[in-house]
Order: sequence, then structure tokens, then C-alpha cells
Amino acid sequence: MDRLGRQARAAAKQLAAASTDAKNKALRAAAEALRARRGEILEANRNDIAEASLSGAMLDRLVLDDKRVEAMARGLEEIADLPDPVGEVLARWSRPNGLDIARVRVPLGVIGIIYESRPNVTAEAGALCLKSGNAAILRGGSESFRSSHAIMACLQEGLRAAALPAEALQLVPTTDRAAVGIMLKMTEFIDVIVPRGGRSLIERVKAESRIPLFQHLEGLNHTFVEASADLAMARSIVLNAKLRRTGVCGATETLLVESKAHLAPLVTDLLEAGCEVRGDAAAQAVDPRVRPASEEDWSTEYLDAVISVKLVDGLEGAIAHIERYGSHHTDAIITEDAAKAEAFLATVDSAIVLVNASTQFADGGEFGMGAEIGISTGKLHARGPVGVEQLTSFKYLVRGAGQVRP
Amino acid sequence: MDRLGRQARAAAKQLAAASTDAKNKALRAAAEALRARRGEILEANRNDIAEASLSGAMLDRLVLDDKRVEAMARGLEEIADLPDPVGEVLARWSRPNGLDIARVRVPLGVIGIIYESRPNVTAEAGALCLKSGNAAILRGGSESFRSSHAIMACLQEGLRAAALPAEALQLVPTTDRAAVGIMLKMTEFIDVIVPRGGRSLIERVKAESRIPLFQHLEGLNHTFVEASADLAMARSIVLNAKLRRTGVCGATETLLVESKAHLAPLVTDLLEAGCEVRGDAAAQAVDPRVRPASEEDWSTEYLDAVISVKLVDGLEGAIAHIERYGSHHTDAIITEDAAKAEAFLATVDSAIVLVNASTQFADGGEFGMGAEIGISTGKLHARGPVGVEQLTSFKYLVRGAGQVRP
Repeated sequence: MDRLGRQARAAAKQLAAASTDAKNKALRAAAEALRARRGEILEANRNDIAEASLSGAMLDRLVLDDKRVEAMARGLEEIADLPDPVGEVLARWSRPNGLDIARVRVPLGVIGIIYESRPNVTAEAGALCLKSGNAAILRGGSESFRSSHAIMACLQEGLRAAALPAEALQLVPTTDRAAVGIMLKMTEFIDVIVPRGGRSLIERVKAESRIPLFQHLEGLNHTFVEASADLAMARSIVLNAKLRRTGVCGATETLLVESKAHLAPLVTDLLEAGCEVRGDAAAQAVDPRVRPASEEDWSTEYLDAVISVKLVDGLEGAIAHIERYGSHHTDAIITEDAAKAEAFLATVDSAIVLVNASTQFADGGEFGMGAEIGISTGKLHARGPVGVEQLTSFKYLVRGAGQVRP
Repeated sequence: MDRLGRQARAAAKQLAAASTDAKNKALRAAAEALRARRGEILEANRNDIAEASLSGAMLDRLVLDDKRVEAMARGLEEIADLPDPVGEVLARWSRPNGLDIARVRVPLGVIGIIYESRPNVTAEAGALCLKSGNAAILRGGSESFRSSHAIMACLQEGLRAAALPAEALQLVPTTDRAAVGIMLKMTEFIDVIVPRGGRSLIERVKAESRIPLFQHLEGLNHTFVEASADLAMARSIVLNAKLRRTGVCGATETLLVESKAHLAPLVTDLLEAGCEVRGDAAAQAVDPRVRPASEEDWSTEYLDAVISVKLVDGLEGAIAHIERYGSHHTDAIITEDAAKAEAFLATVDSAIVLVNASTQFADGGEFGMGAEIGISTGKLHARGPVGVEQLTSFKYLVRGAGQVRP
């Protein structure tokens, strides 16, 4: 692991100085390699699947096929098409003494990424780090070890084709769980840890590591239907926010409703669509199929076709509930009252706050930022979608003509 | 301490929503209170001094007088004059589906500040937090406890005069060293720790705390005189960079010189100005007063009239030395070669990189950013001078008209 770190640090220096053309060439060559080596990748994936004792959604996350490999390749090409953040002049100004000061984007250095079973994260996260001029050490789930390995071989082939160091992207070469612990202690070699996984992974990183992290906490998201809301709009948004895809972090987990006139049709819609509803007394009164919500329900990220529903006492009641139970990820208000919309936007302390739109828009692509490595619920450095820009820092370049400070 | 944290968290919420006018009114009223209560403050300071067993520079940092109190008051008024960062729209764009997305500055929350003997930090750091809409918990040096207390009373008087919660700015009410340990564990109530002190304080914070910090590490700064440098410019800059004020973090600690023709006059200048010079063999050959530099000298921040001097093998040698021994704070090149200047700017991985100017310009005020709470040597969130903007985060406000995600 120490050698891995040392190699990553050395490669990071070369990558920081790499031209946009070289980085894009590496990404496109890696995409071609994914296509050319599709057979190997799928075979590695079949071996992973044969050994994994997974089922349902977890198994589905692991499985690769022709379409998914092509999607990965196209994903790399889309990242190549993004503007290069490195070198961007964020601000430039002159001082009265003639000093010229520029604030310029630079890479962060070495990024450590710890993720679970989806092998496509290897390609996507690796490519985002490469584009932003960073080296990366990736540690995927042990179930997808062979698949990730085959994908990583393509990324490194791309790096070599562009005469960039292959060590810029490295996979931890063991499924030994102890490797994560070692990685979390590599303060000298890793500048930021990005944990992509459940709450237990994040808690482990926070407990064991002194390395700063981009915290991608759960999305305990709320949609609040305010009394003035247009019922048709509310129905359409709530169904989409909960059920379009239930396993994404932007899915709504709790519905807050101010008016009983809205409550009945919204609850009925959800039940009819096959969603389990757990509610307070008012929601239970709507339909006998509504189960009672326990205290725990208000702080549960279901990531499934389950929703908790509560009648709240207006804007303030909704905000108080969100503040108490939310995860500062994404929250929405449905309202026709512009003043209440603005109050909600100003007061709710979440990375993404929406008015009259589905919480499922919480996504770097939907924001126009290109691919993302996750959505940060922390307030430092990166908040919201973490794309290539968020994987950079900056420095100040000061150009003088002999100035000394009086 | 728990009560302190709870109060700070509650006050932070009110402060985040406070108007620019209210915050500025609080700052101006606090400045007036400092003037009105000058007698009390100076008496408290005399009591601190009577008990402190300090001398020299440390004692000087602690001492207040009429002029210093007036400077503190004026400092608060200057912070009131700065633009309010909160609410600033950093970017705003529309998506093809009609969603309007804005990235808007918000405060960080509660900032913990741990500092040493200078009581004026109480006023300055508190005011910067207030202006940026944050609550703060301040822990000053025990030697300045009474002085800081008297100053804090003025800040709180200002808050009350503007109908803002006095608990927005709080001083840890004990000189017990254990209080720092407790503060470092208050993850629930403190969002960022700003340690203002020496390496041992920073190491303690890093070792004990899970709270993110704005790392203000030492300024192990270099000035590199490249072979093409104008000798007169180099002499003027080197003297200023080392000796203008030796106790500031922007002072140069190591001089790297490429050409022997530059080395002799630069070393002689420094010696004549009363600076102790510790050098490699080449520097020692210039003058018998030059002492041999030990390996430790290259990584020592003297903060005094002492400098280490080394002949290096061109740009690459200089960059390699800086990379090995520097603290990524501030480094300068003196050169007439534009290509080498740009290579130095691009390659040196420090918060501030200068061409043909004194490292003593490393200062928020000199950058035109107003007052600063320190200079961050970390690469995450804040890098370089930490002013009011760096004490903020942002969130995304998304305004829709019923959009759902396909």
C-alpha cells in the first residue's frame, strides 16, 4: 500500500502538469480499450458474479453486459468533452502597487475513492479524477474485484497511450478488508477521501481517518406540499420524486403536507402506484392501507418504494421537521406562494433546495455539470454534486516588478 | 461547554438570516463600545500582564494601549465596510427543461477559533465571523483571558445594539486547558476549527479533533534568486522579504540562489542588516560570519532575524528544495526570464506563488480581501488568506414550474 501511495503521489505531480489534450487522449483511448476488451471484462464480471452471494438490487448493481460496457465507454468520452477545469483563472485583479494577482484552479493531488459493488464506478470516478488532473487510488467492493480490475486495465492502457503515468489511476490490489484501514491512514499520500457507500462506510471513514473527506451522506429528502400548491403539479412531482427511481440519493423519503385536501389524493396516488405509505394519524385516516409511522421512520432513507407522510403546521412546521430529521441533501417545496417559496429557499440548510420541481433532479448531469462522483452533504469545499470542478483547489499567482512591502 | 455549543448553534441560525445592515450595525456599535470602555479594557490588560510570566515578543503581543484599542475599533469598522458575502449569487443558469439554478453563498455555521496571547484576535476573528453570518466560539490564550473578556463584552454589546443574539460570539469562560480538548470534540456544535498558533497547536487539533480545520501551518517560505535576476531588485526584495517584519508568516526563511555573482552581495546585505545567516558551503565561503546550516535549518521557521541560504542548481534545483522542505505557504522567484517565471508559478504547489515581489505580501489586506483570520496552507475549501468569503459555503437554489425528471 505504501508503494501504491508513493506512486500515486509521483504520478499526481505529472498529471497536474499534463495538457488538456493529453488527458482527453487518455480518456478516449481508455474508452476504445473498454470496447476492444469487452470480452475480457464480461468474463471477469461472470467470474465475480459466480462467486458473489448477492441477489436482487445488489446483484443487479454488479452485473455488466454489452450495453453497460458501452455506456461506460461513452461516459469516458463525455468526460473528455467537458472543459478542463485546471488552469482556469477564477479571478484576476491588480493592486494599487501594481501587483497582478490571479486565482487559478489547480488539482487537489491524490484522491482516495472507496466504493461498493458497482464496477462502473471504477471507470467514472477514475475518469473524473484524471480529467481534473488528480491521481486516484480506488478501492472497489470485493464482489466486483475482477470486473474493476479489467476496467482499470483499460484506464491504464489509455494513460499509457497518452504518455501519462499509468500509476495515476490505481486499484488497491487486494480484497483484504484491512486494506481500507491502511488507506484511511495514508495521510501522507492521499489528500481527500471520497466514500461512496452507505452510512456505515461514512461512519467508519470519519472514525478512522484524519484525511479530509467529501461526505456523501444519505439523501433523507423531503417534499413539502404547501397549502397553496397546485394539486395536479403536486401529484405529478410527488410521484416522480418518490418513485421514478427509488434507489437514488435524490429520491424523496418523506412527504410533508400542509392541507388535508392535498393529503388524501397524494396518499392515494402513492398507494395506487404500489408504494408503501407509513404515516401519522392524519395520513392513516386517508386509507386503511397506510401503516403507522414510527419515530424511526422520519429518519430512515428507504431507497425503496416506501414513503413516510406527515401533516405539518405550515411552512414553519415543515422547516422544523426538515431541520430535525433531514440530512441536508435535497429538499423541495411545492407552492404557488412566491414569498413562501423564497422563505423556504433561504431557510432550509440543504445542499440543494428546490421550488416546484422533483427532488430527483439532484444530479450533476441534470445540473449541467457533467458526470459527478457523488453529492456532498458537507458544507466545506464541495457541497452538492461533486464534478470535475469540485475536485480542484486553487492557488494565487502574484506577478510583480520588484515590489516590496512598506 | 455543551451549553455554549447549543447557544452558538441556535445563534448561528439567527445570524445566517440577519440582514447586512444589522450585522454592520453590530460591528459599528462594538467599535464604539471598545472606545467607550477603553479604561476597563486597559485595566483588564494590566491585570493580565501583572500575572503573565512573559517577556520580549510574547509580552509585546499581549500589551494593549490607547493606540492598539483604537486600531481594534477601526478594524471592526473596516470589516463593516466590506461587502457582505452572504447571499451573493456565485453563478446562475437555466437548464433546457426550464429549471433555474443559482449557486448562492451561505454562512458555514459555527466556527471555533483557538488562538494564543494576542487579545486583538478576539475582536478581529469575532468580527470576521459575524460579518460572514457565522457564530463563533473563541478560545484565547490564558495570559490574555481578562483582556479578551473585556473585548468580548464590547462585541456582545454591539450584537445587542443590533438586536442580534449576543451568544453569536462567545468566549470559552475558563482558562482551564481541558476546555480546548472539549472544544475539539464538539462535532455537533462546531463546523470548522481555525487554530491560530504554532505547529504544536495544529498538531494537537489534527490529532484530537474530527472537526474539519482551516490549517494555518507555518510559513516556511523561500525566495529563489534565479540566474537572470536583476541584482538591485533581488537585493531590495530579499532584505524586505526577510527583515521587514521577521515575526509574520509571510517572512522568507530560506534564500535559494542560482548564481555565485548574486550570492555574495545578498549574503553581505543580510549580514550588514544584522541578520544571522546559516548557509551551505558556498554561502559560508562568502563571509566568515556565515554559520554552517544544519539539515534542520532547511525546515525551520525562524520567525526571527535568521535566514538559511543555499546555492541551488537552477530552477529545477530550487523547485525540488521547495517541494522537499517548504510548507506550501508562500514562495517567490526573482527572475528576468519570463519562461522561468511561468514555470515556477505553474510548478510550485504553494498557496501563494510570486514573481519579482516580496513574500511579505502574503496577507489578506495586501491582496485587497480586507482583514483575514489567517493564511491557510491546506488545499481544501480555503487556501491562502482566509477572509470573509472563505468563511462561507454555498447552496444550490433550484426554481421550477412543476418539472419532473424523465
